[in-house]
Amino acid sequence: MARKRSHHQHGTATRPRFWGRHAVAAALDNPQRKVLRAWTTREAAEVMQFPKDVPVTLAEAPDLGRLVPSDAPHQGVVIEVEPLEEVWLDDLLVAAPERAVLLVLDQVTDPHNVGAIVRSAAAFGVVGLVTQDRHSPPEGGVVAKAASGALERVAWARVVNLARALDDIASAGFWRIGLTGDADTDLKDALGPARVALVLGAEGPGLRHNTREHCDALARLPIGDAVESLNVSNAAAVALYAASIN
Amino acid sequence: MARKRSHHQHGTATRPRFWGRHAVAAALDNPQRKVLRAWTTREAAEVMQFPKDVPVTLAEAPDLGRLVPSDAPHQGVVIEVEPLEEVWLDDLLVAAPERAVLLVLDQVTDPHNVGAIVRSAAAFGVVGLVTQDRHSPPEGGVVAKAASGALERVAWARVVNLARALDDIASAGFWRIGLTGDADTDLKDALGPARVALVLGAEGPGLRHNTREHCDALARLPIGDAVESLNVSNAAAVALYAASIN
Repeated sequence: MARKRSHHQHGTATRPRFWGRHAVAAALDNPQRKVLRAWTTREAAEVMQFPKDVPVTLAEAPDLGRLVPSDAPHQGVVIEVEPLEEVWLDDLLVAAPERAVLLVLDQVTDPHNVGAIVRSAAAFGVVGLVTQDRHSPPEGGVVAKAASGALERVAWARVVNLARALDDIASAGFWRIGLTGDADTDLKDALGPARVALVLGAEGPGLRHNTREHCDALARLPIGDAVESLNVSNAAAVALYAASIN
Repeated sequence: MARKRSHHQHGTATRPRFWGRHAVAAALDNPQRKVLRAWTTREAAEVMQFPKDVPVTLAEAPDLGRLVPSDAPHQGVVIEVEPLEEVWLDDLLVAAPERAVLLVLDQVTDPHNVGAIVRSAAAFGVVGLVTQDRHSPPEGGVVAKAASGALERVAWARVVNLARALDDIASAGFWRIGLTGDADTDLKDALGPARVALVLGAEGPGLRHNTREHCDALARLPIGDAVESLNVSNAAAVALYAASIN
């Protein structure tokens, strides 16, 4: 069975900080999320709802700027959080309804893209997101900001071995479709009545050979030849839409 | 008629720099694009094809880093260019085929998003992109990098007055569909056999009132209520896909 890492072995040094009003509001609103402390400008404090048990420090915007990566658009609010409880792929698969879409990312590393993908995954109601632990960004501020709150709402299973996870996904009755520009079949023709797992690789390298070998079908998005590919988060959004209207 | 600005009044100080291999290769490959000079690492020089009339300076990667915004992923190559010739909306409209999709952005300002949108616009073969001059990013390195070469391949008309441009677009027989989360109609039900102009607003503010008034229909993407909206470039990609399969 595909295992995921323990977030909790790293100690306090790696506690994520989130920023931006959507990301922070969603974290505060998530009963599964432990928020350790908050920093806020007076202006942001008026619109944010901080629970009573979260220590809040009032600060000026430039001070907040020093708590986050340079140029991070903190919008006047920063929080320090515990990572969410780990999600087990098996739990996801067991709980999946008859019609379900799973999104699998093969070494997509850019946190802005992954965050946007998390947001689209929530928007199109996927049952879960599956990534390989060592080749995907950790739960962090850039992902949370790009996900615009959706990081709190998508079940994200981080697995050690993606090929083995794809075996488990197949055993659970999911039809695994690998998206790749060199496929002959259009995605919409590859979609069937079954549960589906959409598998996307990183821009450039695309799906790894071993990942392709663990797909039931390969399919392409119907784009012309003016560009090689879409941005990976745009490709994911289109694929999720195509699956949702199937 | 909707006019666009002159790029050429600003002098040399505002000449754009592009970086990244896809963006640079596409610029070098575009006969309409004047490339003034190039800086490259030895390694990148081996894979890039510089025309003989472009002065090339060999440099180390850190030197290239000083020619571009901090953390810009230059991939060993930077060029200085002239902006492309201005594109007139009227020319676009006159040249559009019987079935055509036009993409209109209402104050989408983030250059990463606009670049990704340009890339998707090229992928799905739009006849043109229309933005309001004062509220969209200039032709620059971040847009070019995010567009991954597509900036050279999409006809981009910058207009002074978006409402007037939408009037012209309607006169040319385009059905203008404004994308907004509060619409009752699904985008796929709003699409018809006619030429279509897809109109998208910025995340957060969405379409301005006057822009909505200049649409023939308002429609939404079929997303659940787990998130308010998609990232704007993801929304554009989904809308372009929906129009392309209609």
